[in-house]
Amino acid sequence: MSDPVSPLAPSQFPTLPDVAGVRIATAETGMKYQGRDDVLLVDMAPGTSVAGVYTKSRAASAPVDWCRKSLKGGGGEAQALIVNAGNANAFTGQNGADSVTRTVEAVAGSVTCRPSRVFAASTGVIGEDLPDQMIVDQLGGMVAELHGGDWETAAKAIMTTDTFAKGAGCTTKIGDQTVNIAGIAKGSGMIAPDMATMLSFVFTDAKIPADILQELLYEAVGQSFNCITVDSDTSTSDTLMLFATGAAGEQPVLSGADDPQLAAFREALSTTCRELSHLVVRDGEGATKFITVNMSGAEDNAAARRIALSVANSPLVKTAIAGEDANWGRIVMAVGKAGEQADRDALKIIIGGVAVAENGRAVEGYDEAPVAAHMTGANVDIDVDVGIGDGTATVWTCDLTHGYIEINADYRS
Amino acid sequence: MSDPVSPLAPSQFPTLPDVAGVRIATAETGMKYQGRDDVLLVDMAPGTSVAGVYTKSRAASAPVDWCRKSLKGGGGEAQALIVNAGNANAFTGQNGADSVTRTVEAVAGSVTCRPSRVFAASTGVIGEDLPDQMIVDQLGGMVAELHGGDWETAAKAIMTTDTFAKGAGCTTKIGDQTVNIAGIAKGSGMIAPDMATMLSFVFTDAKIPADILQELLYEAVGQSFNCITVDSDTSTSDTLMLFATGAAGEQPVLSGADDPQLAAFREALSTTCRELSHLVVRDGEGATKFITVNMSGAEDNAAARRIALSVANSPLVKTAIAGEDANWGRIVMAVGKAGEQADRDALKIIIGGVAVAENGRAVEGYDEAPVAAHMTGANVDIDVDVGIGDGTATVWTCDLTHGYIEINADYRS
Repeated sequence: MSDPVSPLAPSQFPTLPDVAGVRIATAETGMKYQGRDDVLLVDMAPGTSVAGVYTKSRAASAPVDWCRKSLKGGGGEAQALIVNAGNANAFTGQNGADSVTRTVEAVAGSVTCRPSRVFAASTGVIGEDLPDQMIVDQLGGMVAELHGGDWETAAKAIMTTDTFAKGAGCTTKIGDQTVNIAGIAKGSGMIAPDMATMLSFVFTDAKIPADILQELLYEAVGQSFNCITVDSDTSTSDTLMLFATGAAGEQPVLSGADDPQLAAFREALSTTCRELSHLVVRDGEGATKFITVNMSGAEDNAAARRIALSVANSPLVKTAIAGEDANWGRIVMAVGKAGEQADRDALKIIIGGVAVAENGRAVEGYDEAPVAAHMTGANVDIDVDVGIGDGTATVWTCDLTHGYIEINADYRS
Repeated sequence: MSDPVSPLAPSQFPTLPDVAGVRIATAETGMKYQGRDDVLLVDMAPGTSVAGVYTKSRAASAPVDWCRKSLKGGGGEAQALIVNAGNANAFTGQNGADSVTRTVEAVAGSVTCRPSRVFAASTGVIGEDLPDQMIVDQLGGMVAELHGGDWETAAKAIMTTDTFAKGAGCTTKIGDQTVNIAGIAKGSGMIAPDMATMLSFVFTDAKIPADILQELLYEAVGQSFNCITVDSDTSTSDTLMLFATGAAGEQPVLSGADDPQLAAFREALSTTCRELSHLVVRDGEGATKFITVNMSGAEDNAAARRIALSVANSPLVKTAIAGEDANWGRIVMAVGKAGEQADRDALKIIIGGVAVAENGRAVEGYDEAPVAAHMTGANVDIDVDVGIGDGTATVWTCDLTHGYIEINADYRS
């Protein structure tokens, strides 16, 4: 965090609503960072339901293993969340699993619940034993300080190479009942679907059964965290969790994820997740441009997403954008290598709203001035139609700069 | 080519044998570069057989389209090859196809053969019309100067962002007959299987029917060009061709690609292709380290190759190596994200011959000094066993440095 704040960071942390039934506290363990909090405890009202999405890595971290197991075996209920930054507790063997067990048992003792209702996440260096006692030592103090609403402090406590704290949320309704959503996230490198090196925790005081909550989370993640990439690298620790305390007051019974009473909530949840995921891209290591890739004309939406990701992950596309060069030839290359159907001779590429290539070749005499001006901005929009079908997708990424090399060629040492 | 020569370049261009039946000439068209030859004409003895492997891009260049068609429809015979550097004639629509037709017809007229026996390749910027007349204007002079053996001049004429000329070859035997192999290659960025942004042409005076030649080429490419990656980007123009003139003298009749009389030749051809492919990696844009990833213990060889490529393509692994950091946690991450079976708790990672991780965790107290010393060298060896089966693969790549960003953030302009 000695790195300067990303030029793509928002000017300030947003004002987020309180979420009834959620209390948080943070503390400084001193295990890696000096002079900052690095552990977050969240206490939730009894009866809180939980949903989660985790890394697809075959080398998942110990806390990810724990959360998966608890999500399955815990009856969809959660009462506490413990997160630490600086040590990922990944690739730590049996020691790592034992660390998680000790930590969640201590948390369960502190907030008085079953261990299976405690969820855990760790982020930081891989392959070093987690000094879990340093976390446990802070529990007493944190439990004494639990309070509502300070989302920025919570977001700061889970940062690693992040250059700014990330939060998003809003107030919406389920039926006639006003409910609140607030979420935090961390992540800036090792970011690729599915998902990012990324931790994100979203809380709501809506009352939603765990099975419906899980469906809603899958829907939201498909339009947000699974559509971002910084460097195509997927972490061992990726975790997105959604907690619903039900503490907002009397709420309607829901028939399912598609219950019409959930329409506004679904939209609000998706927006929150999308905003959080964009913040992760805006903190992409070394990022100077926020890039939106809109893909259309693909065989289907899944194909569109794969082609969009091929463009968004291409080092040559990303370096061209870093150089503010509207090098659409590299976009053609990235479309071509995606392995999906594309009609070279119907391909159309629009940069910053200006068609630069269509029908398999450059648009003759297109006005380069607005395109060049667009490339100098902080937001770059690339629209591609591959001329095959109706599939569409949008993916967000950032450019690849010297900053990425600087951060990553000397991170651990 | 104003960039300094890659630190991984060999000290000099190798001494390569003459290949009977092959004559070459180069010239300067002036279409892009100043003060250097940028077009290569190769004339081959009548009866030369030909094999080729081309980019899998869905946006293949016009010359790739032409070569594919001629390889299929031309009866496996070749008499000439024309290659230009500076303009890829890719994404140029019907103009591009017309350019190739005009060029190969002019070449066919100059060397007196059917157009379908002329093969063409172009490398350079995408999306600009090829000024083919500038090539055609040089044909008369080149035909007058055709001569054998000057492989270095040929290799230089096809360079784009390459920092050194690339050649490999040797003398071997088929049965009792001595035959020669010589090849050239270009490529340094947009390098990934299958295949690299890469042109390579290999010539032999062996007498080998086209169908057998194609089989031998597939075998060789599977162990060479399809096992290298610089930046995971696949070009629209990748072309590898193998020409066999049969002019070395009386040669045995071959029963097939597995004819025992071909054993030494197969080995020699594979070695030549491997050497050429390694030279491409050694000229990887910004490369300072030549990295060998040996993968074992995978479900099968194909899975091993995919995991090895996941490691070799990971920006985080490549930047760590650029920083001379033996950050095996990132290797764990890259293995985990490959989507192939891997046993986290049996995973073993060896760097520079020293086991740094095994049984799902760091090797306690391993000697860091030799590993740190290994990381400072120009050659970095990573061995990974994923603990599942018998599948193995070797992949070669380079590190990701500021040099890559410098070259690619300001290439076209």
